Amino acid sequence: MYKSIPPKGMRDFLPKEKALRDKIASRIKGAYTSCGFTEIETSAIENIENLTGGDGGENTKLIFKIMKRGEKLSGMLGGDKKLTEDDLSDLGLRFDFTLPLSRFYSNNRNELPNVFKAIQMGMVYRGERPQKGRYRSFVQCDVDIIGDPTPLAEIEILGAATKALKSIGINDFEVLVSDRRLLIALIVGSGLPEEHVDDICISLDKYDKVGREGVLEELSKKGFDGTELLDSIEGLTFENIEKFSPEASQNLNTIQKALAMSDISVRFEPTLVRGMGYYTASIFEIYSPKYGLALGGGGRYDKMIGKISGTNAPAAGFSIGFERICDLVSEEELGGETEEKIAILVEGENEYLDAVKFAQSQDAITSIFQKKKKLGKQLNNLENEGFTKFYNVSKGEYFS
Amino acid sequence: MYKSIPPKGMRDFLPKEKALRDKIASRIKGAYTSCGFTEIETSAIENIENLTGGDGGENTKLIFKIMKRGEKLSGMLGGDKKLTEDDLSDLGLRFDFTLPLSRFYSNNRNELPNVFKAIQMGMVYRGERPQKGRYRSFVQCDVDIIGDPTPLAEIEILGAATKALKSIGINDFEVLVSDRRLLIALIVGSGLPEEHVDDICISLDKYDKVGREGVLEELSKKGFDGTELLDSIEGLTFENIEKFSPEASQNLNTIQKALAMSDISVRFEPTLVRGMGYYTASIFEIYSPKYGLALGGGGRYDKMIGKISGTNAPAAGFSIGFERICDLVSEEELGGETEEKIAILVEGENEYLDAVKFAQSQDAITSIFQKKKKLGKQLNNLENEGFTKFYNVSKGEYFS
Repeated sequence: MYKSIPPKGMRDFLPKEKALRDKIASRIKGAYTSCGFTEIETSAIENIENLTGGDGGENTKLIFKIMKRGEKLSGMLGGDKKLTEDDLSDLGLRFDFTLPLSRFYSNNRNELPNVFKAIQMGMVYRGERPQKGRYRSFVQCDVDIIGDPTPLAEIEILGAATKALKSIGINDFEVLVSDRRLLIALIVGSGLPEEHVDDICISLDKYDKVGREGVLEELSKKGFDGTELLDSIEGLTFENIEKFSPEASQNLNTIQKALAMSDISVRFEPTLVRGMGYYTASIFEIYSPKYGLALGGGGRYDKMIGKISGTNAPAAGFSIGFERICDLVSEEELGGETEEKIAILVEGENEYLDAVKFAQSQDAITSIFQKKKKLGKQLNNLENEGFTKFYNVSKGEYFS
Repeated sequence: MYKSIPPKGMRDFLPKEKALRDKIASRIKGAYTSCGFTEIETSAIENIENLTGGDGGENTKLIFKIMKRGEKLSGMLGGDKKLTEDDLSDLGLRFDFTLPLSRFYSNNRNELPNVFKAIQMGMVYRGERPQKGRYRSFVQCDVDIIGDPTPLAEIEILGAATKALKSIGINDFEVLVSDRRLLIALIVGSGLPEEHVDDICISLDKYDKVGREGVLEELSKKGFDGTELLDSIEGLTFENIEKFSPEASQNLNTIQKALAMSDISVRFEPTLVRGMGYYTASIFEIYSPKYGLALGGGGRYDKMIGKISGTNAPAAGFSIGFERICDLVSEEELGGETEEKIAILVEGENEYLDAVKFAQSQDAITSIFQKKKKLGKQLNNLENEGFTKFYNVSKGEYFS
């Protein structure tokens, strides 16, 4: 039995929705391009080993896995062995763009510039529980710089991302920043074990939702006393980061000053963690106080490419959450011209040739339709579809 | 272990390749749009029942199937039952756009125009054996008209498709046409059984590759004497189709006359079959004699939507094979302006603010880089990346 709705958590887009999405994507790409980034495209399907590699944090649990095919599958299904997921799957759908980009860079390093400024825009897939505003396939718009170890990379990335938001009329936001090195210094300085940094960070990340007591409780369940850590974090300001991590302090200050040039406020947010295990230094999020949500996030991941290629390359990236943006922006706000769109109406086959001839003579969008008996209703419908003029082939003139 | 190459039969695209592909796609979309078609987007992931439904011909054997997740999967894997593919998979990747469009139309009929002219452009996936020019994920560019039972639908579709090819400089092609109703009339008229039409057509489709004798041999293996059928087909001309199928004759003649208005030659090709089981009347292919290959194909499928929604709607579509087109068109042929692209070179953090300030003052594409010791090599590399001007922040002037 055919089903007419798309699968759970997936969507189709009607012409008007698609046109708006394209317009927004095109503005974002324009902003990214104007900052010297160039677009690449990677395969939406990755080898499963790459996806399950472990640096994707929680996302590795949400992979859409593709079944093996042909004999490789039938060989498995035909045997007597108790089967596991790994026996049955060789491919999977990407859940973000950072791993694919790192793989792409490792594979094409010699053909890419020393400092490679990449755009990636497209669908990623995560088998999450769908809920309002959260889908199982959604568009991300990423900028990354590979090959620049200096804060210039962060400045250029955040410059491009904020320009992209402004290009679609979103001006009310702030950039939240922190640094993984600072977090580690704080954790270790509070007497907690360095080997559990990731686990401790997962709890810390919930500070804005569950507060101090909530974090302490969760840490305690994991066997850690977080009191000293929370004291340190709550006492942190942009000014005294230096005491704990001079590198992070220097880096964040440089980024803050540069973004101030574009009137962008950068706020130090010590409990900002970001889920991905691959971040190594700066981490950031663009937050909209007006809407109370994050519009995107990113950070520096200097050790990811080395894991794939054996040779490290410094890298930093930012990802705009396209679906959230689309919910915030309307066609009217974006503006743009209305194109001339002519509907050419024919009354049967003997008028086709004249209709085609007329269409060819026009510079506007033209579309030929059979004239209907209820002409008024037809013209009304065509008007609603965006047609601006109606040509009557029988009479050789526009309807008026 | 991470792999740096994309999966077998899949590809990544470098910035230059991606830019060319985007340019071609944008021209095609522009041509389609100018003919009054509007773009939609459907989910790349479909419910598996829709894909295996059976109208996709050979393609249903090539589906990338996605494994169930969570308890639905572990329940299967944990049991004692011998497992089949159907037990393990609930979703799959689309292998064309016709089924997704039909599903989309069934689901959104009330929100779409009576005569709906749709564009679909994007990746489709087929687990074929990869070979030169044949990939496992590739882009198709489709136009379809739903709701028009007259030959105007075919005329508008072929008009849009040929305009798209011309827009990227491909002018040397012919349109091959035939009609499923004519094929059925010929098969039945030759004393062969109507219930085996699809199977007989599969053999007939190979006529251009294996010739008369090859087709006869294959039919004979299937238990059919094809002599009379082949005699009829070889004796067919555009003029005497009428004897076998007046409807097909009328339809093909009307299409031919209308396309002649745009100087497009339409050739009747009686052995043209096209693989898909869902075609019901006209079938067509755009063929390039220069390259000796088909650039796209399509036809009328009036019974597809009824199978999903229970209510039939007349429909016809054409799909341009984007990957083939990309192989034929080069950047030079497409032309277009070169944009001004300024590389801004800094010598350390104390110059960042001036660099950002200068970038903001420019209307061109700007990108900030750390100045390297080997400046000549760096400027040379940046030139190769398309940068047209180089600004020295230390001196406050362009390099010259």
